[in-house]
Amino acid sequence: MNDCIFCKIIKGEIPSNKVYEDEKVLAFLDIGPVNKGHTLVIPKDHYENIYDISDDLLKNVITAVKKVSIALKKGVSADGINIAMSNEKPSGQLVPHFHFHIIPRFKEDGLKHWPQGTYKEGEAEQVKEKIKNNL
Amino acid sequence: MNDCIFCKIIKGEIPSNKVYEDEKVLAFLDIGPVNKGHTLVIPKDHYENIYDISDDLLKNVITAVKKVSIALKKGVSADGINIAMSNEKPSGQLVPHFHFHIIPRFKEDGLKHWPQGTYKEGEAEQVKEKIKNNL
Repeated sequence: MNDCIFCKIIKGEIPSNKVYEDEKVLAFLDIGPVNKGHTLVIPKDHYENIYDISDDLLKNVITAVKKVSIALKKGVSADGINIAMSNEKPSGQLVPHFHFHIIPRFKEDGLKHWPQGTYKEGEAEQVKEKIKNNL
Repeated sequence: MNDCIFCKIIKGEIPSNKVYEDEKVLAFLDIGPVNKGHTLVIPKDHYENIYDISDDLLKNVITAVKKVSIALKKGVSADGINIAMSNEKPSGQLVPHFHFHIIPRFKEDGLKHWPQGTYKEGEAEQVKEKIKNNL
């Protein structure tokens, strides 16, 4: 896509710190890292999110995520790794080109996860059926 | 693994609200949902995290994540979807059996993402090299 910032990075029109590249996938440092080493993994073909990417390309992306996660953990001596991706603006997706975040974590880096809620009696079963009905 | 809570769910020794199941993968509702419909997708074979799971099984898991994400979005009329996984305790991994979270998001649900940092001049290039050296 002509106006997509990640497509421009793929084409080399915008510089990036490339960590990994193969025929289908590119990984580069996020310029605004949650922790240093925070890497983005993207398909070279433009897909917006997990709803529309092809299964084959998704498999290429996730095996690259695994590869880079292991190298990132070693490279920055991380104590753990978070993998995350956002789909659509209300989920926090800023660039509408499919991307996985790989974020190195360190003991006591202070990052908190979202609080967990609960279901009322019988409510989980209803929610489950709503999802199953759309599979 | 005998003492793994997710392996017990797979074997049916602990009840769960199953959303999707195939030969290799199981998806079920998280009992402590960040938002209602929050689903976990796990491989039926026990792997601890993304470092040790086989590429083949990882591909099975991620295609199930895609499938369930689309159904979840429709089923609970979500405005977006976050996908997340944690590797090792310092990253927030509570159950040491590989699992993806699929979290439905809603406009103004109040969930915030982690703040982004910056690199000093030349620092990103150094970090990039450390990762590349471990690939």
